[in-house]
Amino acid sequence: MSNKTPPTSVLSVNAGSSSLKLQIFVIPKNNDISKPKLLLKASISKLTSPPAEFTFKNTESDKYAIESQTLEKDINSVDDAFHLILEHLKKDESGFGAPKLDQITHVCHRVVHGGELGVQGPLVINHSVVKELEELTTLAPLHNGPAISVLKATSTSLKNATNIVFFDSSFHASLPDFIRTYPIDQKVAKERKLRKYGFHGLSYQWILKNTARFLGKDVKETSIIALHLGSGASMCAIKNGESYDTSMGLTPLEGLPGGSRSGTIDPSLIFHFTTHPSTTDQTPASIELSHAENILNSSSGFKSLTSTSDFSQILATNPPTQETTLTINIFLDRILNFFGAYWLKLNGGKGGVDAVVFSGGIGEGSPKFRKMIVDGFDGLNGGFDELVDGRNNNEDGEETVYSIGDGGGKVRLLVCKADEELQMVEECLADTKLW
Amino acid sequence: MSNKTPPTSVLSVNAGSSSLKLQIFVIPKNNDISKPKLLLKASISKLTSPPAEFTFKNTESDKYAIESQTLEKDINSVDDAFHLILEHLKKDESGFGAPKLDQITHVCHRVVHGGELGVQGPLVINHSVVKELEELTTLAPLHNGPAISVLKATSTSLKNATNIVFFDSSFHASLPDFIRTYPIDQKVAKERKLRKYGFHGLSYQWILKNTARFLGKDVKETSIIALHLGSGASMCAIKNGESYDTSMGLTPLEGLPGGSRSGTIDPSLIFHFTTHPSTTDQTPASIELSHAENILNSSSGFKSLTSTSDFSQILATNPPTQETTLTINIFLDRILNFFGAYWLKLNGGKGGVDAVVFSGGIGEGSPKFRKMIVDGFDGLNGGFDELVDGRNNNEDGEETVYSIGDGGGKVRLLVCKADEELQMVEECLADTKLW
Repeated sequence: MSNKTPPTSVLSVNAGSSSLKLQIFVIPKNNDISKPKLLLKASISKLTSPPAEFTFKNTESDKYAIESQTLEKDINSVDDAFHLILEHLKKDESGFGAPKLDQITHVCHRVVHGGELGVQGPLVINHSVVKELEELTTLAPLHNGPAISVLKATSTSLKNATNIVFFDSSFHASLPDFIRTYPIDQKVAKERKLRKYGFHGLSYQWILKNTARFLGKDVKETSIIALHLGSGASMCAIKNGESYDTSMGLTPLEGLPGGSRSGTIDPSLIFHFTTHPSTTDQTPASIELSHAENILNSSSGFKSLTSTSDFSQILATNPPTQETTLTINIFLDRILNFFGAYWLKLNGGKGGVDAVVFSGGIGEGSPKFRKMIVDGFDGLNGGFDELVDGRNNNEDGEETVYSIGDGGGKVRLLVCKADEELQMVEECLADTKLW
Repeated sequence: MSNKTPPTSVLSVNAGSSSLKLQIFVIPKNNDISKPKLLLKASISKLTSPPAEFTFKNTESDKYAIESQTLEKDINSVDDAFHLILEHLKKDESGFGAPKLDQITHVCHRVVHGGELGVQGPLVINHSVVKELEELTTLAPLHNGPAISVLKATSTSLKNATNIVFFDSSFHASLPDFIRTYPIDQKVAKERKLRKYGFHGLSYQWILKNTARFLGKDVKETSIIALHLGSGASMCAIKNGESYDTSMGLTPLEGLPGGSRSGTIDPSLIFHFTTHPSTTDQTPASIELSHAENILNSSSGFKSLTSTSDFSQILATNPPTQETTLTINIFLDRILNFFGAYWLKLNGGKGGVDAVVFSGGIGEGSPKFRKMIVDGFDGLNGGFDELVDGRNNNEDGEETVYSIGDGGGKVRLLVCKADEELQMVEECLADTKLW
């Protein structure tokens, strides 16, 4: 329940299928509420491939730092991970302590799939919202489960805090009807809420806000093609400050391939994983959602093409193998397909695109891949900035947004450092309805 | 078996899921073998929504013409339809007759899915090819069944003729590995031959050949974006005379929506047709291929968005309804997505595209929709011909290819009248290996 107190100490929670990341921000007394200060970061990863690893950083002092500590206990769920971090925070050796933990006023939870609930934007948690969130799980069992599990745990463990959920789909509430509608039975579609939702919304809001600031433009006048390229990858055509199209769909599976995700494939394909190769077998092929999700979300993508899901490792393979070359070319091709489509629909050839913005682990971390993508724009003759190698290769910058181009074109080439956690916290601080 | 006789009378067979079309071409003695003459056309349609309709046209004389005759007998399979047409041809009142039927030297069959067999191009039928074709049916049960059924019937009924199969996927054998490969388990993909095949290949070969002729260019130097827009719709990026990318995939389901086909959707979506809406039901959703195929191939697309699968009727609805407007906008959006992608990959902004070519029922028959698509190109600033209304609205032309633009741009806007049957027959006549 909301306590209408201005936030003073905010916990951000980012729970994925195999990791949990917590961050605590404080707003020092008498300070600008829009400038939260990061106090600590804690994460537990590799939950689905134990032993899990624990990382902890207190920004006040290096003496509390823990770097990728292998956990001895059998920690294999986000629930386990959450309670372990909570216990750690209560202990003196974390430098945070139980008294400060009690002072947390707000908890911001990233939830992947907002369904129709997410169209409204972030929501303060109460009983009816929790019930609606649980109903959403039928739409996105794989994606929302961990977040809802931690949400319940924080409600119990941090009784005084206001819990707020931020949906990765909310930013895409603006998609036009002809883009969000699938050409399927409309009665079923409406009943079961089957439409394009889109994801990575917190990242795109962050990119948009910071890019507009960088360009010195009003958010509402900013049009960009944003590439969130990570182990999960998507793209977004942002037109005058609103999501106009995005590559993910009903679930994060549609669109670009990723570390372990197939992306868009023929909708019939999955059934052929289960047919018997015998030609005489006339039994109709059948497959369960859970099996299909596992194959297409967790056992496909880069890791099915080569030996790793880590794209930076694939790019760094030297000399490249047939497999790494194919993986890179597939990812590049699918990215450029969406780029061409978004360039057309944003009227790129007539000045409709202010900037191309790279973000996410691969988008921020791989100058080599950025160059391959930008080289792919060449055939558009679109008046892009020329890539400046010195800028493209510079990874030391402190700025949230920086240019990798010469600034001489009509379309800027930018990198934006993703920060979904800070996006949630800033939105929480700015919106009194969430207190 | 091949009889190595130059073709003198060729039957083309185009069997779909709900219709059968037969045409007979003759090569008059001492005439140019590359110039076959159409002698008659026969078709039976509405096989899946009886009563079926019979149409017959003998080009020699109008007196044999039959226009959409409702069939009294219960004709509801392509087999029934084939035998009915054969009986009709044997009778005096068809103007063709049994003796002429015996003189058919070659039968050209359009088969949708060639699988890996189709990579080689057209094949003369023998026992091992029939076996391989039957094996393909597991990959495309919905699409190949009718053609194979008629193939067996012709082998029995026209014993002296050489049967040749032409695959709609063969033209796309040239797709680069990074376009034809799905990012899924490569062992399964190779074993089960799961890759992008692409379809409408006979149509694209026809378009390419005739467009090159129209432009006065060598086929090998012709690069176009071809739109085959019919009840089944696809697009193709043709680079220097070869298919470089196409919108359909493992099956014709992927890509653009059509009259009753969803086109690309989130690969998870189909499973949500079968989940129980109750939130307490934790049973994993499961679905059979045959059910999924029926939903996505036969009960989706335009007809699921509005009351008809007939796009010309949707376009003509006046005033437009919310449903017809949405349907048109969805189709247009998905077409322009592929257009932007293909424009980029063919280096359209740097002169890499010679022409945009419209074909298929909608592509040829709807000036209004062509104009909407061409208007969509505007934001590319790509140097297209200006559309000339007088030419765009002219449907009376006899030419296979005609321009609908002013010819002032660097990219021509063309219409090509599809003729998959003549494409097969011309290829049969030109390739002595098929005799």
